[in-house]
Amino acid sequence: MTEAIKAEDSVTVRKLVSETEAFLFDCDGVLWGSGKIYPGVSDTLNKLQSQGKKIIYVTNNSTKSRLQYLEKIRGYGLQAKINEVYCTAYTCAKYLQHKVGQDEEVYVVGNPSIGTELDKVGVNHFGIGPDDTIKNANEAHKLVDPLKKNVKAVIVGFDDYFNYSKITKAISYLANPETIFVATNMDSNFPVTNSEYMMPGTGALITAVAFAAGRQPDVICGKPDSVMMDYVKEECEFDQSHAVMVGDRLDTDIQFGNKNGLKTLLVLSGVTSTKTLEDVFRNNDKEKQPTYYAKSLSEFGQYL
Amino acid sequence: MTEAIKAEDSVTVRKLVSETEAFLFDCDGVLWGSGKIYPGVSDTLNKLQSQGKKIIYVTNNSTKSRLQYLEKIRGYGLQAKINEVYCTAYTCAKYLQHKVGQDEEVYVVGNPSIGTELDKVGVNHFGIGPDDTIKNANEAHKLVDPLKKNVKAVIVGFDDYFNYSKITKAISYLANPETIFVATNMDSNFPVTNSEYMMPGTGALITAVAFAAGRQPDVICGKPDSVMMDYVKEECEFDQSHAVMVGDRLDTDIQFGNKNGLKTLLVLSGVTSTKTLEDVFRNNDKEKQPTYYAKSLSEFGQYL
Repeated sequence: MTEAIKAEDSVTVRKLVSETEAFLFDCDGVLWGSGKIYPGVSDTLNKLQSQGKKIIYVTNNSTKSRLQYLEKIRGYGLQAKINEVYCTAYTCAKYLQHKVGQDEEVYVVGNPSIGTELDKVGVNHFGIGPDDTIKNANEAHKLVDPLKKNVKAVIVGFDDYFNYSKITKAISYLANPETIFVATNMDSNFPVTNSEYMMPGTGALITAVAFAAGRQPDVICGKPDSVMMDYVKEECEFDQSHAVMVGDRLDTDIQFGNKNGLKTLLVLSGVTSTKTLEDVFRNNDKEKQPTYYAKSLSEFGQYL
Repeated sequence: MTEAIKAEDSVTVRKLVSETEAFLFDCDGVLWGSGKIYPGVSDTLNKLQSQGKKIIYVTNNSTKSRLQYLEKIRGYGLQAKINEVYCTAYTCAKYLQHKVGQDEEVYVVGNPSIGTELDKVGVNHFGIGPDDTIKNANEAHKLVDPLKKNVKAVIVGFDDYFNYSKITKAISYLANPETIFVATNMDSNFPVTNSEYMMPGTGALITAVAFAAGRQPDVICGKPDSVMMDYVKEECEFDQSHAVMVGDRLDTDIQFGNKNGLKTLLVLSGVTSTKTLEDVFRNNDKEKQPTYYAKSLSEFGQYL
């Protein structure tokens, strides 16, 4: 039933690599998981780099700045340069860079890494950190300061301090249809291991704001939406038809690769099971069908 | 373009009233708003009651218990008995009454009124009040207690203390497909006057939990869903074809009346504009089309 090509033999793997100029890698569930790099990953990436292939890291993670993410990659012993790393904090700052004026501000529901990226491009912002100004919906207007008049955009990203006050402020600024609504990524939850708890993803926070505001984000910076690919292409030149997106999620990584004209390689080391892979072919869900699949990057890499 | 019947003349109003046994009233935006009863409301309801009509109050408000809501109604000088008052805290407790065993519990994202109603029907619960046990998604499993094993249901209602910790716990319990997911109501925001702030409604909180949990509520206690009507009918006998649902919202009140076979009367004293009313006819959106409309209950009541 599965029609993806299994990339776990030397003929298939070598042919694919020989035709490829750049490999774009999702990280969590592909390169590492639960704080450990997966076996064989370092070896696989080194081999690809030694063959002159471009290696680019594209993650929906919105909790780290680009520099922090680079340090994380290097901390696992992998080689990377700053312009080979794309995360959603960076993407949303770049998106707003020329849209927010010097005398304007951005209200951020998010974490300090988003602030770091906005600072770098000179965009004024406020809102990061704890905020429990609004404890009672009916009394809110008595408890909070007047809305600022110069808010040009609202960013919603991952925020440990997400709460009712923050939803209230976000939708109040978004009541102005001119206010740009920027979402980092729509992941529904985080991969969690060694815990019976499920961890809500950024998509849940964005969904709450969008529902109460009665409007959808104007842009989603993460995969599968295309804005991140626009920036990858701008900074790393390569021919998309000779590039492969490698990921563990069908609805983000694989869809992102497919809609941008890349080949796609699903690895089964993360959130996707063989059954789920089979389902996208059974259901003819073309956007989520990978070109290739492998059990893991290690299985793929051993034939290099 | 509007095909609803304007109920602001004596022939129309008297005919409608003479054919009607029970009037079901939404409250906020219909009877009162911004803490004040609307002019003419008391007089209108008194006249209907003096003509032997049943008056029933049905609200999606999940911040008050049934008794608190009765006191609110009486505080405005209106007459009501406890079994004429239906709010979502009451509805969700009644829904769970025979579904949760003596040795089981309900995790509640909500306010004390939901606890009051659960206590009344002898359903064990926990979770109400502030909770910021989870400040860091990646470290959550180290910071929180093991999940309880006896959680039969999760209720999500209005909660001033809504935050990341609560979403995490809710979805962790909902990961068990046997756990019943109860939502109070899907209102996207609260009507706010005298403030530039918009106030997120319970629907935003439920949407966040549903998105991260990857499942929709098993039951929604508020309008337009039918469970509240089941309980109204159980406690207040009347013929639905001789009853009128009066409300200010097309997507809750009017749809609730229509799907349950009542006539419907939209009043324009709340969130719905004349243009929005016209749109549901222009768009042939039958579920939301009221039978009658009036500028306000006062305009309607003067012809009684």
